[in-house]
Amino acid sequence: MPRYDLIIIGSGPAGLSAALTAKNRNLDFLLFGSRHISEKVQKAHLITNYLGLPEISGARLADTFLKQIDQEEIPIREDRIAAVYSMGDYFTVQAGSEYLEASAVILAAGVSQAKSYPGEAGLLGQGVSYCATCDAAFFRGKPVAVIGGSPKEEGEASFLADVASSVTYFPLYREDTSLPDSVHVIREKVIDVTKEGKLVQVVTEQNTYPFDGVFILRASIAPDQLVPGIRTENGRVVVNRNMQTNLPGLFAAGDITGTPYQYMKAAGEGNVAAIRAAGYILEKKK
Amino acid sequence: MPRYDLIIIGSGPAGLSAALTAKNRNLDFLLFGSRHISEKVQKAHLITNYLGLPEISGARLADTFLKQIDQEEIPIREDRIAAVYSMGDYFTVQAGSEYLEASAVILAAGVSQAKSYPGEAGLLGQGVSYCATCDAAFFRGKPVAVIGGSPKEEGEASFLADVASSVTYFPLYREDTSLPDSVHVIREKVIDVTKEGKLVQVVTEQNTYPFDGVFILRASIAPDQLVPGIRTENGRVVVNRNMQTNLPGLFAAGDITGTPYQYMKAAGEGNVAAIRAAGYILEKKK
Repeated sequence: MPRYDLIIIGSGPAGLSAALTAKNRNLDFLLFGSRHISEKVQKAHLITNYLGLPEISGARLADTFLKQIDQEEIPIREDRIAAVYSMGDYFTVQAGSEYLEASAVILAAGVSQAKSYPGEAGLLGQGVSYCATCDAAFFRGKPVAVIGGSPKEEGEASFLADVASSVTYFPLYREDTSLPDSVHVIREKVIDVTKEGKLVQVVTEQNTYPFDGVFILRASIAPDQLVPGIRTENGRVVVNRNMQTNLPGLFAAGDITGTPYQYMKAAGEGNVAAIRAAGYILEKKK
Repeated sequence: MPRYDLIIIGSGPAGLSAALTAKNRNLDFLLFGSRHISEKVQKAHLITNYLGLPEISGARLADTFLKQIDQEEIPIREDRIAAVYSMGDYFTVQAGSEYLEASAVILAAGVSQAKSYPGEAGLLGQGVSYCATCDAAFFRGKPVAVIGGSPKEEGEASFLADVASSVTYFPLYREDTSLPDSVHVIREKVIDVTKEGKLVQVVTEQNTYPFDGVFILRASIAPDQLVPGIRTENGRVVVNRNMQTNLPGLFAAGDITGTPYQYMKAAGEGNVAAIRAAGYILEKKK
């Protein structure tokens, strides 16, 4: 398996800034995220304190960033990242159904607005998954549920419909869904996900539904669900001034490291994370 | 004396970014620096990793920043900052010959390329000054020397020529000087500044010259010469992730806090410093 120098996870200002510096330092790296950049950026009204870009809307800011990334010929891979495992000396990153290796990783995946469900902790791999394309095979011919945080998760639900015996979809948003007829949509407020014997239950305000597997698809996963062993405080990754986490070779940048939630701060941290990752990689190659 | 919320010292990316956020937060603040922005920025060849501004020269970057600051109607005061004193609950900042008060201060003055002279430490106020317009009055009718780090210090030397009995100017650069005829220019390499009785000596490779006062005018002063009591390590200000220094209400951002010396990092830190300063000021007003 080829081993990359660096894998950057996230395409908000932190991830993009890290990617520009990684490119600048000639690292062999991959950038995972969305060409949509970041939902939070897209929705921002007017940003007046990004040095270099006077009074700019979120949508135009995202557009400006994307153009620059394209100009630097940095591809954005849109596979969903299911997990990052520290192997001591390197990392294994599960991207979609693929396993990738890298010497260093920068986590810049932002913060999830959505809170975890009370019963959800510890159920990863026990019937709960955060990535349909990654784990669909485990649920071949079985009934599953998808809890979808945004319309873009509908693609994963459609994909599952071809594999599972049935798919029940719980949208966490108001927009109309566009799904295959075979997918059963339930519009009830999900309040918990719990284990009951071998089954996982989706608990709504009205009912309880049992499934063999439940896919919880949010815009971003809590960092400690994504990276076993990472040190967090109040759900944010603990880093020092060099953006190092507690795991050697793992860096974090942007909102995922805590407040203030600011574009400038995120871009600055992405830059520092990439510089320090480059130093770490160089040191390892000696 | 009016007390400002905040005084920002430095007009590189860190200081400008802090100013944009201070404006955004409606703080009553002053920004000290140069409309020339930062010598280091101006001289940068091509910057390829500033998110939002693809492949841009230092001069154009500085120009872009300045335009934005003008557009936000943030004045840049060019008075030289001679000292910042923590008074416990607030700060007194000596700007030129004026004393100003502020609840919080952000130090974003960059790093001095020039090292201190071996004998220089402890001579501030003992015959050595870092600001001609501030301290000229102490040397009325006396012979003084000016050690000028760049051509823009010649203005201060000219100013002194009207006050002191004689001015001897030691340029640390090769460019021709443009000074009043009464100023005596000596082009010898300065290797030390020492005290001898009541006089201060400028020691060059060739000679030793005694004066009543010696003005050492560098692009930036070492932080512990500027702010008594500030904690530094290897000449850089020690800060935490909130850009707080050891002195309550004093924040620092940009190169002055240490490597990496990057525009993005500096801008990000300026943003965080201003946000945290705003929080500090709000807390004090309660």
